[in-house]
Amino acid sequence: MDSLIERFLEGDRRALARVISRVENETAEGRECLRALYPRSGRAHSIGVTGGAGSGKSTLTGALAAAFRRRGHTVGIVAVDPSSPFTHGAILGDRIRMQDLTLDPGVYVRSMASRGALGGLAPTIDDVVAVMDAFGFDYVIIETVGAGQDEVEIAGTALTTVLVNNPGTGDDIQAMKAGILEIADVLVVNKADHPGADVLVSQLQALLTLSPAGSRRPPVLKTTATRGEGLDALADAIDEHRAYLESSGELERQRAIDSRHQVLSIARAILLERIRQATPEEELESLVQQVAARRLDPHSAAESLAARLRA
Amino acid sequence: MDSLIERFLEGDRRALARVISRVENETAEGRECLRALYPRSGRAHSIGVTGGAGSGKSTLTGALAAAFRRRGHTVGIVAVDPSSPFTHGAILGDRIRMQDLTLDPGVYVRSMASRGALGGLAPTIDDVVAVMDAFGFDYVIIETVGAGQDEVEIAGTALTTVLVNNPGTGDDIQAMKAGILEIADVLVVNKADHPGADVLVSQLQALLTLSPAGSRRPPVLKTTATRGEGLDALADAIDEHRAYLESSGELERQRAIDSRHQVLSIARAILLERIRQATPEEELESLVQQVAARRLDPHSAAESLAARLRA
Repeated sequence: MDSLIERFLEGDRRALARVISRVENETAEGRECLRALYPRSGRAHSIGVTGGAGSGKSTLTGALAAAFRRRGHTVGIVAVDPSSPFTHGAILGDRIRMQDLTLDPGVYVRSMASRGALGGLAPTIDDVVAVMDAFGFDYVIIETVGAGQDEVEIAGTALTTVLVNNPGTGDDIQAMKAGILEIADVLVVNKADHPGADVLVSQLQALLTLSPAGSRRPPVLKTTATRGEGLDALADAIDEHRAYLESSGELERQRAIDSRHQVLSIARAILLERIRQATPEEELESLVQQVAARRLDPHSAAESLAARLRA
Repeated sequence: MDSLIERFLEGDRRALARVISRVENETAEGRECLRALYPRSGRAHSIGVTGGAGSGKSTLTGALAAAFRRRGHTVGIVAVDPSSPFTHGAILGDRIRMQDLTLDPGVYVRSMASRGALGGLAPTIDDVVAVMDAFGFDYVIIETVGAGQDEVEIAGTALTTVLVNNPGTGDDIQAMKAGILEIADVLVVNKADHPGADVLVSQLQALLTLSPAGSRRPPVLKTTATRGEGLDALADAIDEHRAYLESSGELERQRAIDSRHQVLSIARAILLERIRQATPEEELESLVQQVAARRLDPHSAAESLAARLRA
C-alpha cells in the first residue's frame, strides 16, 4: 500500500491506474489512497466539457488536450460516458487521433461509468479527478454527455464548464434558456464550418444578454475540432475563466459549495449502505412487495427502514 | 385534511392541485395525503416521453394526450422540465394548442422542477404520478428533457418509455448505442416530414437488430406531431406495450424494482435530513472547510458525519 503511493508520487502511470481502479471500485484501499493523496490535490484546473450527443465533444476534448500539450501542460481526461470514443479507442477526428494522445506521456485518459447504484453521477468521479489532480496533471478534463441534469452535476465537479453546441439543431436554443446556460462558463459552437454556425453564435449571444446584470457573461467561441481550429482561443478562454475565479474570490466559494455537496452525498451513500446491512433482505423485500402491491406507501416504508438508524 | 381527500375523491380538480402542491413541497400533510391515496393508485398507465432538446417532445406529448382523449380516456401530464412549453402555456404546434388541452376537463397538466436538493430527479415525481393515478386518470404522461441520465431515471418512473428522435442529428445514433436504446420501449422519429426521417428509421431499426436474442424489440414509429400525424399508431404501440408487460409478468417485476428503488431513495433522503439535524451547522461548516482546504478528504468527513447515526 505505502509502496503503491510511493510509486504514484514518483509519477508511475501504472500506480496511477491502480489507484484509480481502487478508488473507482470504492474499496477500503481506495479510501486509504484518497486519504493519503487528497492533501496533494487542489492544484489542477478541472474543466467539464459537456454537450448533447453528436455535438462533437469527444473530438473537442481531444483537440483541447492537444492545445494544452502544445503549451507544455499535462492533461488528465476522464470520459464519463460509456459511448465516448475514448472508451473504445476510436478515431477522434481528422487531425487528432486517440493514438496520438494515448502515446503521449503528458496525457492520461480514463473512461468510467456514469452512474452509481442509485442513479446520479457516481460520487467517485470527484475522487478520480482528485487522484489525477494529486498525480500532478495541470488540467483535468471531464467529458460528459448530457442535455439535462448531467450538465448541472458536472458543473459541480469542474471549475470551468464548457458547453458544446452545434449548428443544425436550432430549436435547442429554447430549451437552453432554462438553466443550462446558467452553468456554462464558456460556450462553444463546434462544427463552425457547418452552415448555421454564425446564426447560432448570434442566438447564443442574444440569449446571454438576458443574464442578470453584474454577472460574468460567458464568451461564445467557434471551433472546428476535427480540423483543430479555434482551440487556442478556447484554451485562452478557460485560463481567463480560471483567473477570474481566483481574482473574484469565486474559486474559494465554489470549492466550499462543492466540498459540502460531496461530503453530504457520500454521507448519504454510507447511511444507505448501513441501512441495507441493518435490514435483513426478507424484511426489505416484504416492505417492497407491500409498496408494489399498493398496500403501503413508499414514504411509510422508507420511514420504517430509516427508523433502524438513530442519532 | 379529511375533507381535502374527500373532495379529491369526488374528482375536484382544485383538491387535486392542492394535494399535488403538498406532496411536491414534501410537507407532513403531503405525506398524509399520499398515505391515504397510495392504495388507490396503480391503475393508470404511466408513459415517459423523453428526447433531446428540439426533438419536439412537448408537442408530441400534447398530441398524444389528444389522441387518448379522442378514444375517451383521461390524461394527466407531468412536465418535468422548466423549459417545457407546458410550463409557460405556450403554443405547442399547429394543430394542438395548450389552450385546447387545458380547457379539457379530461386533461390535467402540471409542471414541476426536475431535481431535488442534492441532484437527481426529485423523488416527488413518483409521488405526483401516484396522486394523478389515484385521481383516476387513465394515462399519466411524464415529459422530460434528456439525452443522458435523465432518461434512465424516467424509465424507472414510467411503465412505457417513449424515446423521441428527430432527423437531422444523424450522429446521435452512435451515442445512443450505449444504453439509451435499452430503456426505450417505443421509438419515435418525430418531424417525419423532414428530410432524413426514413434514413433515421432505418438506422434505428438496424441498431435494434443488435438487441439480445429473445428480448422484445421496440417498434420504430414516425410522427409529425405538429400536424397530428402518426399519433394513433403511437397510442396503439403504447397500449400494446402495456399488454405485453401484463401478459409477460414484466409489469409485476417492474413494479417491484421501482418500489425498491423508490423506498431506498426516500430512506436515503430521510437519513440525510436526520444527519443534518443531528449536526450543528458550525460543525458541518468546519468539516466542509477542511475538505475545501484539502486538509481532510471528503470520505473521512462523510464518515464522521455518518457516525452520528447508528443502527
